[in-house]
Order: sequence, then structure tokens, then C-alpha cells
Amino acid sequence: MSHPSFADVRDELIAKPGKSFDLSKRPTRHPKLFEDKKEAATCLKRDAAAIDELQDKLYAERGQALLVVLQGMDCAGKSGTIRKVFALTSPLGITIRAFKAPTEQEAARDYLWRIHGAVPAKGHIGIFDRSHYEDVLVVKVRKFAPKEAIERRYDEINAFEKLLTDSGTRVLKFMLNVGYEEQGIRLAERISEPHKRWKFNPRDLEDRQLWPDFMKAYETAVERCSTTHAPWYIVPSDSRTRRNAMIARIIRGTLENMAPDWPQPDPPLKLEDYDFS
Amino acid sequence: MSHPSFADVRDELIAKPGKSFDLSKRPTRHPKLFEDKKEAATCLKRDAAAIDELQDKLYAERGQALLVVLQGMDCAGKSGTIRKVFALTSPLGITIRAFKAPTEQEAARDYLWRIHGAVPAKGHIGIFDRSHYEDVLVVKVRKFAPKEAIERRYDEINAFEKLLTDSGTRVLKFMLNVGYEEQGIRLAERISEPHKRWKFNPRDLEDRQLWPDFMKAYETAVERCSTTHAPWYIVPSDSRTRRNAMIARIIRGTLENMAPDWPQPDPPLKLEDYDFS
Repeated sequence: MSHPSFADVRDELIAKPGKSFDLSKRPTRHPKLFEDKKEAATCLKRDAAAIDELQDKLYAERGQALLVVLQGMDCAGKSGTIRKVFALTSPLGITIRAFKAPTEQEAARDYLWRIHGAVPAKGHIGIFDRSHYEDVLVVKVRKFAPKEAIERRYDEINAFEKLLTDSGTRVLKFMLNVGYEEQGIRLAERISEPHKRWKFNPRDLEDRQLWPDFMKAYETAVERCSTTHAPWYIVPSDSRTRRNAMIARIIRGTLENMAPDWPQPDPPLKLEDYDFS
Repeated sequence: MSHPSFADVRDELIAKPGKSFDLSKRPTRHPKLFEDKKEAATCLKRDAAAIDELQDKLYAERGQALLVVLQGMDCAGKSGTIRKVFALTSPLGITIRAFKAPTEQEAARDYLWRIHGAVPAKGHIGIFDRSHYEDVLVVKVRKFAPKEAIERRYDEINAFEKLLTDSGTRVLKFMLNVGYEEQGIRLAERISEPHKRWKFNPRDLEDRQLWPDFMKAYETAVERCSTTHAPWYIVPSDSRTRRNAMIARIIRGTLENMAPDWPQPDPPLKLEDYDFS
């Protein structure tokens, strides 16, 4: 059984830069890439191990960084993705930041200020659980900022992500595309399953009421901010295992292209030059 | 084959608060607690899985935090410990901070300023790779601060750690006790093994020249700062697997005592109160 290649997954999920983008055409289930759930699980396991090895070299090399942006409606599986895709990666060299409503300190600056402060250092993989995209998603839907300000943000975000890319940070953006029906099931699970109750927030149901507005905001954000330097990937997320497997495939492939390696001092170190007695 | 209990390991490794402490009496190898390396590896694997589960609850509960302080000479295995003990723990909810020489900004404040800024939030396990103890170790040995200032620090550190403990953060401090001979072997490996070369720093050999001074500084720090609220554990570290297994045992046991649990809303949530259609 052959796993789908990095190119297969990438080409299937990417929102092509510079093209118009129709979110309603994107599936929330995607049985095609993997034979079945078992194949997806096997693939995920191998990729998680490979990501761990690549990250070790990235950390040693300290010349490049990877920023993984995760966006999605409640229950789309942002935390679950982090848990499974990086299950085998050492916590050393992973920086995770979950963005919530801005604090007073954060709100007193421009919206990219707290984002910039959280970008990964060279050698690290940074993971954003939500991100600056909230400033063109929930902020737009709930009208937390003036229309003109939001309108400017798409270009500002592209410029910001270009700065990161040009400075050695690869940017990967995943929209976890969960279906409306599947979200309803998962929200209800947060009440029926005791170990999920802590995640339940009645306000999530308010966002659910605004589903079409959110989808429209996502569509615009993806269309305007899927760039050649920082493309958006739309990940069918009704199946958790397949979702994780697809994301792992893209992260592994990207890291392989970045090709981090163990640094070798030049001139080479010689044992006889040092006294270890 | 029965694994050593939490109490066995704790009692064996603790530096008893309020007692005089003789580091030279503490072994760097410790074959007694585990039958053999295989038993240590099995025990470590189980404990790493248990730590992952406990951490999930800690994260959901958000009422307590755990701070793990790792100190030791170069090559004692601080990174390796983090990698193996938290191998199965989700990076969500783990905060790692490695302290190096202070930056200009940090040096312009008191030595606990940057430490305080890095303490774990409730729900998190924070890991310090080096810590405020450097300010009574390398700073003392290399005379980077006046003697009287350093002399005050032991009490200041105890007061600081008391504040953390009283505010819901359990503090565990591990001195990774590696032997002089074993360190020499490991430093040489950093030259002979290509994937370790990036870790080699000729200055580590300078610290090695000051070994007796460092041991004396460790002895004083442990004696004066092993408190009932934040005890020091001296971990024989010439064997990597046993070292990791002992530390995992203590961390697991401590988390079990902290007894985090899935929060249950009061009054209980009812499915029929919400509309998931």
C-alpha cells in the first residue's frame, strides 16, 4: 500500500495563490487520499517520527524556523492536531502559543504586535493555535474593528508573513475545515463526555449561529492571504485521523525541503586539540 | 519484578531540609534502585505515559502548576532528561525555558526578574534548563557578583520559591550528579560523534577545570535551599536511563499527589439546555 506523497497532499489541499477561492467547493470529509483510517494512522505515525528527527536537526542547526498556523471553528481540532502531529517531537524546540481575546496590554498596540512577539526563534517550530487571522475572522464577523481597518489587514498580514519568510521562517497555514453537522456532534460531546466538559463554552454556540458569516470571512482571508511565500491549506477535518495525517504529511514534506542538518564546525574539531583528562 | 516506589526513590535522592549536606557522599552511579537498565527503561516508559495523562488533567483543571528545575554540570543530561521524561507529554501545557548568560535587559534587573517572568501558568508544567541557581553557582565560582550579594541569595531564593509554592506551583529541583570521569567521556563524544558536534563549546572545558569549586557551590546551594516546600533531589547521572527513570518516578509521584482532575461544572451541564442543531 503506497501512502500519498507530500506533493499529492499539498496539491489537493492548497488554496492556489492569486486565484479566486470558493470554500463551499472544499470537502470537509476526504476519503480519497488514504485507503482507509488505518492507512492514515500508519502514515501519521511514520510522519510524526520523521518530524521528530527533522526537528532535532533544525534545533541543532539554528538557521531556520517553521511557523505552523492553525485556524478553524470550535471543535475543528486545533489542540488534537498539535497533540497527535507532534506526539513524538521533543518539547525542546517547540513553541506553542494559543491566542485568545487580546489582553488590555495587547489591545493597546497594533494587532500584529503580540503575534510578532510570539514568532519562533531559529531552530524552533512555532505553533499558533489561532493567530493574527482572528483579526480578519471573528473581529470581522462580530465587527470589533472598523471595516476600513480590517480591509487593510490582508495586505498587512501578507507583508508581515513575507518579512518572516525572508528572514528564514517558513510559514504554513492550515484551515481545519470541519462541517457544520460534525461541529454540532462534537459540541454536544463536550457535555456528554466527562473529560471534555472543561472545554464547553456556551459562547461557542453563538459563533455557531454565525456560521455563514464565518465561512465568508474565511473565504476572503484565504483568497487574499494565500501567497506563494505563505500558502493556505484547507484540510478536511471531519475525520480526525485523516486530518492529522494530511497535516503531518505537509509538515514533514516542508521540513524535508528545508533540509536542516547537523552543523559541522569548520575547521573540523580534533580530539587531540583538547584535554579531557 | 517490582519497580521501586515513588517513596523509595524520593527518600533515596532527597537532600533532607535543614540537615547538613555532603555532596561527596552522593553517588554518581546508582545500581541499587533498579535491577538493571532494562527494568529502568520499562519503568521510565510507564511513568512517561502516566505523566502525559496527569498533565492532560492538570491542563484542563488550570488550578495548579508544576515547576521542574534541572541543574547540573555540562553533559549531565539536562536536555536528554527533558526529551525522555516528557517524551509522551503533549507539547501543549509544557513550557520550557533554558537560561543562558543574562541579556543586557535581564542584567539591568535583579537576578530573579527573568526567572519570575518564566514561571509556568496554572495548568502547565514548566521546565527550567538551568535556573536562578546559576546565580549562586557559576556566578559564585567565577565571581561575577559581590560575595555579600551572593550570600543574600539563598534566603531570597527560598522566599521566592515559597511564594510560588503558596500560590499553587509545586517546585521540584533536580541536581543531575554526573561524575568527573563520565563528563570527560561525554565531552569527548561531542567531538567524535558528528551529530553531537554542535553542542561542543571549548568553554565547557574551562568550567571542568573549576570542578571542585563548582561542587562546593552546589553543596552550599543544596544545603541552604533544600526546603520542605521545595526540596532538592540529587540524581546519580552517570547512567542516562536510570537517571531518567528516577526523575520520571519523582515527577509522576508528585503529580499523583497533586491529584489534578477533569473539572466538572457545577451545576452540571445538561444536553437539553443547548441547541446543537
